[in-house]
Amino acid sequence: MASPKFQTLPGFRDLPPRECAIRNYLTSTWASVARQHGFVEYETAMLEETALYLKKSGGELSSQLFRFRDQGERDVTLRPEVTASLARLAAAKQREFPKPIKWFEIGSCFRYEKPQKGRGREFIQLNADIIGESNVAADAELIALAIETMLAFGFRDGDFVVRVSDRSAWAGFAKKHGITGEEIGQFLQIVDKLDRDPPEKLAARLEAFGVEFSELREFVTQPERASPEFLDLMGDLMDDLAARGFDQHLEIDLSIVRGLAYYTGVVFEIFDTNHSMRAIAGGGRYDNLISTITDGATDLPASGFAMGDHVIRNFIEETPHAQMQMEVWLQGATSACDIFVVVADESRRPEALNAVTRLRSAGIATDFPLVPAKVGKQFQRAEQSGARFALVIGAEYPMLKLKILASRTEETGHADQLVDWLHDRIHQPDGPLLA
Amino acid sequence: MASPKFQTLPGFRDLPPRECAIRNYLTSTWASVARQHGFVEYETAMLEETALYLKKSGGELSSQLFRFRDQGERDVTLRPEVTASLARLAAAKQREFPKPIKWFEIGSCFRYEKPQKGRGREFIQLNADIIGESNVAADAELIALAIETMLAFGFRDGDFVVRVSDRSAWAGFAKKHGITGEEIGQFLQIVDKLDRDPPEKLAARLEAFGVEFSELREFVTQPERASPEFLDLMGDLMDDLAARGFDQHLEIDLSIVRGLAYYTGVVFEIFDTNHSMRAIAGGGRYDNLISTITDGATDLPASGFAMGDHVIRNFIEETPHAQMQMEVWLQGATSACDIFVVVADESRRPEALNAVTRLRSAGIATDFPLVPAKVGKQFQRAEQSGARFALVIGAEYPMLKLKILASRTEETGHADQLVDWLHDRIHQPDGPLLA
Repeated sequence: MASPKFQTLPGFRDLPPRECAIRNYLTSTWASVARQHGFVEYETAMLEETALYLKKSGGELSSQLFRFRDQGERDVTLRPEVTASLARLAAAKQREFPKPIKWFEIGSCFRYEKPQKGRGREFIQLNADIIGESNVAADAELIALAIETMLAFGFRDGDFVVRVSDRSAWAGFAKKHGITGEEIGQFLQIVDKLDRDPPEKLAARLEAFGVEFSELREFVTQPERASPEFLDLMGDLMDDLAARGFDQHLEIDLSIVRGLAYYTGVVFEIFDTNHSMRAIAGGGRYDNLISTITDGATDLPASGFAMGDHVIRNFIEETPHAQMQMEVWLQGATSACDIFVVVADESRRPEALNAVTRLRSAGIATDFPLVPAKVGKQFQRAEQSGARFALVIGAEYPMLKLKILASRTEETGHADQLVDWLHDRIHQPDGPLLA
Repeated sequence: MASPKFQTLPGFRDLPPRECAIRNYLTSTWASVARQHGFVEYETAMLEETALYLKKSGGELSSQLFRFRDQGERDVTLRPEVTASLARLAAAKQREFPKPIKWFEIGSCFRYEKPQKGRGREFIQLNADIIGESNVAADAELIALAIETMLAFGFRDGDFVVRVSDRSAWAGFAKKHGITGEEIGQFLQIVDKLDRDPPEKLAARLEAFGVEFSELREFVTQPERASPEFLDLMGDLMDDLAARGFDQHLEIDLSIVRGLAYYTGVVFEIFDTNHSMRAIAGGGRYDNLISTITDGATDLPASGFAMGDHVIRNFIEETPHAQMQMEVWLQGATSACDIFVVVADESRRPEALNAVTRLRSAGIATDFPLVPAKVGKQFQRAEQSGARFALVIGAEYPMLKLKILASRTEETGHADQLVDWLHDRIHQPDGPLLA
């Protein structure tokens, strides 16, 4: 047993091979779907000046920041998200890129809060953003990317729903009740809790704004009575996504406002339909953020969303068809090699090393026993490695035997043709070699 | 101009698309060569208890640690390397895996030191380790992986050299001079500086150990006079790497000892032959570390090496054939899409959105103008995107035009066959469509 003396810190985790492969399944799926949608990858620094986040969020996030003083007495924070850094980077580099800029990022983020299921202190997030386009077509493109990401994980119609709203729809409501300026942000935080907090608690908080709980409830449940601008915007969004064949995933829901103050227009969240309280991804339009971060020096409209690794993974593992697809992928990804070389005659070890090197150089994942071992034990190791083939190098050298481990059949070949022979072989199914 | 108000912290960096693609070139090459060698990926936590590193290094690293107090008053450190975390993880999980365990990891590490060319406060490192095998064959396997990694980056014979030594060769020397126990580590730190510090400075430091500079020099320059055990070990290592065709890259060099106290046997560093002071990678055997980290609860021999992103990137950029290979890769990786859809008739936008979605779902990277634009401007955007093809959807729908942007030739097809047509097309070269 290992000594428990050194353990990971609370909320942090090591990823042994299977856990790491699951991470890779999530991140490689995120990256490939984003690339299919014409998004280009960027990355930002892991650590930032704390003021960057306080400026962005108006202080709301500050209780969760992983914040500390570095050795240079700087007030710094491990990034809790990347949108603030993206705003800085995009403002600095925007002249080098035609608009709209479509970028994505995948990396670790940090939060200092009580660790619990689905929330660690270190987690991985996909971020996708479109910068420089104010039209709702950009929001539709982002929602389409989010939907295609869900489909790529094997989720089907009915497994999930995208709830969409528009922050500006609440502007009229707020104006009618005399809620203005910074108060609007505080008011929307109450709306954000509509599905989570008990009505009595919400009603008490609404009093300060002179709003009855019933008025709020009525406004939320009758989106068709919202402003004509809201209905037009939702109509355009729906038409766009209908042309893509994705409208069945959408639901207009005025209770979706997102907690953060900086959203300005369309906002959306993806929910697991079986656990209606669980948001899998969320985002929206933040047209003023780049201007805020740059003190007005650069003003660009922007929209984006994020998806974290913990919730999507739990959702996959609870959904049999998505889980099965992941398991098939993991089988391939956790094999240590395609070919395991068995050294049946120790005097042929130099030839075995040479063969291993030629196979690897040809891009074929190959492993072998580092030290002499009985042939039976080597075959056992070949099975454990997940290899499809065992290549036996023995007394018959330069003739070689290839054992197909699943079918337990055997083929032979010559060492001189090793790479061509096996390169063709691994691209064919098990069973007799096809002509 | 963006406001300079928010900048990255000293030693930290943002990666806009080209920089991010260079990072991906390095990390994907590292990962694919490691997988070809039968290494399996793992990952450890980004933040650790500081004591883990102090225990491992005996305090040597402590001046460079990115160390702070978290909100829970824990003394924590952003990982400066992953070997200590690996030792913990391997000890905890070793019963689940047959030995030897061959694992690799790629991720960010942190150092708090003065930022300079080739050394940032955040950097990315490849780590490859073999746990549970004490034979020099494991060291040879790691050196082979390091060499194949260099070759995969396009480096050739003569561009680099692997200098190899053995810590235990110095045991005899130390014993003869009465240097014992913890003093050996301090003594080896002087040897480590042999190529870097002036002789007078070294001679002065050697006095405390009763060693003349000339004795040290003589020992280093005459490896053939070292112990028979050393010569046997180097002979076995050389034979193994000669069978793989890699012996021309090796040089036995007793001045290679590695700075850290925990190495116990074979040690090696890869050097750029044109800048002989610059180490590109380094590692060695650390048979006691897992026992140290676990207070003796788990005792496994181990060996490994690390390669950082800054130095290898500089070396690639200074080596024309390696640089050219990277540029070719980057051209493919920085294209936003394969196909840019031109909406030549706005009334066909729904059909365009549908076509875009079908192409993306088939795995073809596709982009399009989010808002109406003149056709000439759309073609300009297609060129900027790096796409090979522009697919024109206009009044002739369901007939579609495909423009090959490089050759400025044109082909036509039917919307119903869109995916099959373009799936075949993108796998063929430019020029007339082959039958």
